[in-house]
Amino acid sequence: MSRKEDIPSAALPPASPTLPHSHEHITLIGLGAIGISFLALHLAYSAATISVYDPRPDLREHIEAVLPLYLSPSVDDIPSLITSRRLILCDSLESACRTATIVQEQGPESVGFKQRTWAEVISYVSPACHLWSSTSGIPASKQLEHLPLQHDATAVSARQRLLVVHPFNPPHIMPLLELVPSPQTTQTELDFAKSYFVALQSGHRPITIHKESTGFVANRLSFILFREACHLVNEGVASAEEIDEVVRASLGPRWAVAGPFKMYGFGGGNKGMKGFLDNIGESIGDVWRDAGTITMDDDTWKEKVIKQTTQAYGLPGGEDIKARDRGLKAVIRVQEEQEEQEMDEARKVKDY
Amino acid sequence: MSRKEDIPSAALPPASPTLPHSHEHITLIGLGAIGISFLALHLAYSAATISVYDPRPDLREHIEAVLPLYLSPSVDDIPSLITSRRLILCDSLESACRTATIVQEQGPESVGFKQRTWAEVISYVSPACHLWSSTSGIPASKQLEHLPLQHDATAVSARQRLLVVHPFNPPHIMPLLELVPSPQTTQTELDFAKSYFVALQSGHRPITIHKESTGFVANRLSFILFREACHLVNEGVASAEEIDEVVRASLGPRWAVAGPFKMYGFGGGNKGMKGFLDNIGESIGDVWRDAGTITMDDDTWKEKVIKQTTQAYGLPGGEDIKARDRGLKAVIRVQEEQEEQEMDEARKVKDY
Repeated sequence: MSRKEDIPSAALPPASPTLPHSHEHITLIGLGAIGISFLALHLAYSAATISVYDPRPDLREHIEAVLPLYLSPSVDDIPSLITSRRLILCDSLESACRTATIVQEQGPESVGFKQRTWAEVISYVSPACHLWSSTSGIPASKQLEHLPLQHDATAVSARQRLLVVHPFNPPHIMPLLELVPSPQTTQTELDFAKSYFVALQSGHRPITIHKESTGFVANRLSFILFREACHLVNEGVASAEEIDEVVRASLGPRWAVAGPFKMYGFGGGNKGMKGFLDNIGESIGDVWRDAGTITMDDDTWKEKVIKQTTQAYGLPGGEDIKARDRGLKAVIRVQEEQEEQEMDEARKVKDY
Repeated sequence: MSRKEDIPSAALPPASPTLPHSHEHITLIGLGAIGISFLALHLAYSAATISVYDPRPDLREHIEAVLPLYLSPSVDDIPSLITSRRLILCDSLESACRTATIVQEQGPESVGFKQRTWAEVISYVSPACHLWSSTSGIPASKQLEHLPLQHDATAVSARQRLLVVHPFNPPHIMPLLELVPSPQTTQTELDFAKSYFVALQSGHRPITIHKESTGFVANRLSFILFREACHLVNEGVASAEEIDEVVRASLGPRWAVAGPFKMYGFGGGNKGMKGFLDNIGESIGDVWRDAGTITMDDDTWKEKVIKQTTQAYGLPGGEDIKARDRGLKAVIRVQEEQEEQEMDEARKVKDY
């Protein structure tokens, strides 16, 4: 499997003929942290033409400053990407969309912005254009609910083509891409998005979420655990730093190796998940009944959590981010080796 | 830092003079999976004398069969451990306790068993003996609440000396040890337990939990996340296998590198945790309000979870356990390297 580190960015322009998607023209709307991260991903792993649109006046300087943080070892060739028209900086949404085969939106997290943007976009793009939103929380159906209903062919078609492609922070490192269709999104569109990202061979793992849900899956599970962690800080059971140490010494490594269902299936011995629920269900039920119910309106726990986190770690600096990213890459490399080993063993069994 | 793999078990008896705790005499009560795992830990990393007591009639055969699974590469010298009286197999609780300096209990998870056992133990041991329970859920205060109150010096002293030392499965690999004192446990006892495990240099990380709470911290956080994961399966948002993939591609690696407070502090940029809560608090609140409320009395979700987990993974076999353990060790090695790097950098800053 190819990995980010293996692709020197100096080899980027013109796009290598071995890279996929040379017939695609991707338009990125919104070049904040997530937008730049996706720009880096498409540039490094696809041969697609890429248009970018963001109303900020310093778009080019911004890309030149931030893109190298996501593409290693460095991108000193942005001018040649632009000269060769591999990368096209657009000064209007209309010009950015006209020849797009995929529009990917990473603008502000506001329903109004998303709705206004899509209304414009679908008036410019071809009726076959794939529509992706990188929102972390606004479902695709909500983003188009202002459009006319059944009798409007353009609106019906847009609803069939829009889905959420939600990355996980930091997106240039974390493998997760949550693909979240609306009830109107077609299976064809979902399949296309999945195959697009699989073909990149960037190590990203697109996973389908079958129903629109608040926070999708990853953030939702994380926020739920975070609530209980804040509750425990609030109750003085352990400090923020101690809870971090507990998680790092137990749940983190466990779930880096296998998710909660597979892991708890192990816990049930030769009866698997049923054995686990039979044996441990009572203890689990005790915890569920005792779970914290703090709310966002209550400032008491917030003050404790902010104070303890800041005391333990200070405010995050560049070195902290680098150390985090090194650690994440190393853990993900372990996962890739684990998968290669499993595939080797499966192959051996097959050959035998 | 020394690691499990570095210590060939053939070098065990007699205890190496470089290992700590040569003056301690540890008595292990209950030699199930957790008991054997702690036996392996104490044998490999301490020079303590170890007595074991379990009413099962095949105790010696059981230890000879299971201990090698925890001590690599193999223990073929159990007879010489016994001959040299480094390891003493006892046929009564009384004989096991008489010269103990530490009693560690890993018996059945029943309040009645714990209470009966401690009542006996404290009548046999010296009044300075350290008392540890490896329970996953019965607080130390509950384990002694049947004893007489203030006027009984032995009971008062036992309450000051008992604390929970809760490992995380699989205990020979996972670094976490939750030290959970009761309100009566003295700081001296807590400090002793912490320093005991730190001195082992086994990679285990004792972390103090300041208040007795249902499920302590690690299992509690895990069960809370698991509830939401089961709710999402029940609602058809994603399958058990898809949720496992989501967690493995996002939260697992993240929390293997740093816990939720440190990681979300990064999410707030130069405002740290306050910035994070200000920016994302509303989305978090939305998820909290929408959280699932399934209970253990409801079988609908259980059937789906059991069926999907079994379909995805089958029932766990020996090869699965080996692959899991290989993965866990590799991730924990990454953590150790990360820590060494951070210590090196801290040292550089200091030298400078």
